[in-house]
Amino acid sequence: MAVNLAAPKPETLLPVTGVTLGIAEAGIKKSQRKDLLVIKLDDGARVAGVFTQNRMCAAPVIVTREHMATGGIRALVVNTGNANAGTGEQGLAHARQTCADLAKLLNCKAAQILPFSTGVIMESLPVERIAAGLPACLADLRTDNWLNAAQAIMTTDTIPKAASRRVTIGKAGVTITGISKGAGMIHPNMATMLGYIATDARVSQPLLQKIVTYAAQRTFNAITVDGDTSTNDSFMLIASACADMPEISDAASVEYAALCAAVTEVAGELARAIVRDGEGATKFITLQIEGGASDDECRKVGFAIGHSPLVKTAFFASDPNLGRILAAIGYAGIDDLDVGKLDLYLDDVLVARGGGRNPAYQEADGQRVMQQSEITVRVVLNRGNSAVTMWTCDLSHDYVSINADYRS
Amino acid sequence: MAVNLAAPKPETLLPVTGVTLGIAEAGIKKSQRKDLLVIKLDDGARVAGVFTQNRMCAAPVIVTREHMATGGIRALVVNTGNANAGTGEQGLAHARQTCADLAKLLNCKAAQILPFSTGVIMESLPVERIAAGLPACLADLRTDNWLNAAQAIMTTDTIPKAASRRVTIGKAGVTITGISKGAGMIHPNMATMLGYIATDARVSQPLLQKIVTYAAQRTFNAITVDGDTSTNDSFMLIASACADMPEISDAASVEYAALCAAVTEVAGELARAIVRDGEGATKFITLQIEGGASDDECRKVGFAIGHSPLVKTAFFASDPNLGRILAAIGYAGIDDLDVGKLDLYLDDVLVARGGGRNPAYQEADGQRVMQQSEITVRVVLNRGNSAVTMWTCDLSHDYVSINADYRS
Repeated sequence: MAVNLAAPKPETLLPVTGVTLGIAEAGIKKSQRKDLLVIKLDDGARVAGVFTQNRMCAAPVIVTREHMATGGIRALVVNTGNANAGTGEQGLAHARQTCADLAKLLNCKAAQILPFSTGVIMESLPVERIAAGLPACLADLRTDNWLNAAQAIMTTDTIPKAASRRVTIGKAGVTITGISKGAGMIHPNMATMLGYIATDARVSQPLLQKIVTYAAQRTFNAITVDGDTSTNDSFMLIASACADMPEISDAASVEYAALCAAVTEVAGELARAIVRDGEGATKFITLQIEGGASDDECRKVGFAIGHSPLVKTAFFASDPNLGRILAAIGYAGIDDLDVGKLDLYLDDVLVARGGGRNPAYQEADGQRVMQQSEITVRVVLNRGNSAVTMWTCDLSHDYVSINADYRS
Repeated sequence: MAVNLAAPKPETLLPVTGVTLGIAEAGIKKSQRKDLLVIKLDDGARVAGVFTQNRMCAAPVIVTREHMATGGIRALVVNTGNANAGTGEQGLAHARQTCADLAKLLNCKAAQILPFSTGVIMESLPVERIAAGLPACLADLRTDNWLNAAQAIMTTDTIPKAASRRVTIGKAGVTITGISKGAGMIHPNMATMLGYIATDARVSQPLLQKIVTYAAQRTFNAITVDGDTSTNDSFMLIASACADMPEISDAASVEYAALCAAVTEVAGELARAIVRDGEGATKFITLQIEGGASDDECRKVGFAIGHSPLVKTAFFASDPNLGRILAAIGYAGIDDLDVGKLDLYLDDVLVARGGGRNPAYQEADGQRVMQQSEITVRVVLNRGNSAVTMWTCDLSHDYVSINADYRS
């Protein structure tokens, strides 16, 4: 069902020196599926991340934040099938236990392990099954295991999500490879459910954090499937520092700009893959909001359109019922919006001008665009110079079916 | 498909002296259906109202607000089939034209008429058909025409919505009767799509406005079907002043309190009827949010739950996947929420305590409640004394079908 999205070919996913990945079938929720992943980092790697803003954040998110403060991270461990969220003190104990179990096998401290979980909320994490699966993950550790890793973190995803780039920074060749998961409960407010990107670049810790924040804002934080912000959102950026290059430590340097752009490109591909694989999605919608007084108000307009069940069902039906988009813009929360200045385009078709229907607009033109699987909605607010691009999908019968059946 | 909602019996809808209603089949969008309503007021009636906060508010809303400032209102005219929204200057001209057409027939000024529209957005209002239908409305004017009036303003509603009360205020018997419409694009931010309540009470203009604002906040502004705020929301309260009683002019009087309570009761019945008839609804959900630091934060929690597609599909499936409710509370926007203090009940079942699963909670108990057609979700925030009650419905396949097909 994913919209113009195929699984990446394994050979397109470039290994990142200093980063190995191992997966296992731990039987956390279902048997005979990959559900446990260990990402092992060589000495000297740095890790930065952004996390869900949901106040009900999951136990592993709390523990990961604690351990990030210590530094010297040696491994990340990720399970699917259970989110370990809404699990209180016992959930925290379970997340710490998993870190301790893996630390023992890697001969390091529990605080050097970052735990992540995804899956159903408010059920107890089966820590024994995870502990039993860890040796198999370690036996499987390889640099070319990215596609299997992407498969091991899927929940309702239908297609594994991974992307890779190779860029030259200064005189060095630098690799960036990442994976993500997510299809529902997607309205990331920091990052998608789970995203991991690694690079072999050498970059200072403050700039690594700066890059992950920059990239998240323009990619994972610019998508929505259903407006539900997950309890487990985490987007981690790893720099193994294995590339033969001077450390990037100046935010004004061309080297910083090149690395930031490349990471954002990989993150963008991963984020858009989540929307293309959105639960029940049949259309991929790009929202281009222009002429805003601030990025923030452009984002409000984008999310109002992207969250509206009425807009989303109209896309599903290929029905150019475009007044619904105007209504969503109107309630986006811009108190002093002058709708009389508003223009609305569907791809190249000018639908509304000055807040009303464009006299030259023909229903047949709107109909033609609505039937495409990829559609750009362009809103021109004509009140400033800010612009944002966001991505969403339609709302179909399958969304309801998938989420009515998820646990059964 | 409406949840435990039947059409009211005509005889339960009490006439309000000084208010007559007439309907017609004007063929605005479809033929052979009631789609035009005139509510005529005798001299001396007062009118107050609250309107959509959507910036893209419809032309008739703009004209109604203008005319309200003048006073001396003689009639309201309501059409279904076309919202006259997103129609720019031409839409304003059309709304004024309809007022002028009716004023001519009633021998009054156009400014003494209030126009209302509901239906599809961004299509031109067929003013000639409305003008042609008005004489039939006037010929049909009767005090006992409330049920027909409720039918004449329906769009995707499956059941007409009307309610009536008779109360004693001081020594006088006072009648309150009202109608409403709405089933989708329901997240009123002032009032539902359209609601009209009339009473024969004598009450000062400032207090009439106070009552309509009070009642809206606790009824029409406390419901959501799909989180889409309409361009046409209007809730009007008419006082014909025909009852034999002294004018209510003291907001601290028992008479004011009695009238305000009775109007709120009628408005609440009309608002809940909208949710029961929510597009595709199979479950009626009461959200009781308690222990908040303010009403506002309780409302944020209620709307986060009521808007979550994941929560709504779980209700549709009768699946006690209640972690989704916790997740919604977590992203409701209370920055300093301590989820460790949170309790969650499903009817009488304590599901979560202190932010985690209640150890004594049995899935079978949650399952039992979820299978009911009427369910109360009770959230105890344990951080203050504020409490609000709100209402919503589930998200079903039929919601998608109805909104994918609405225009065709």
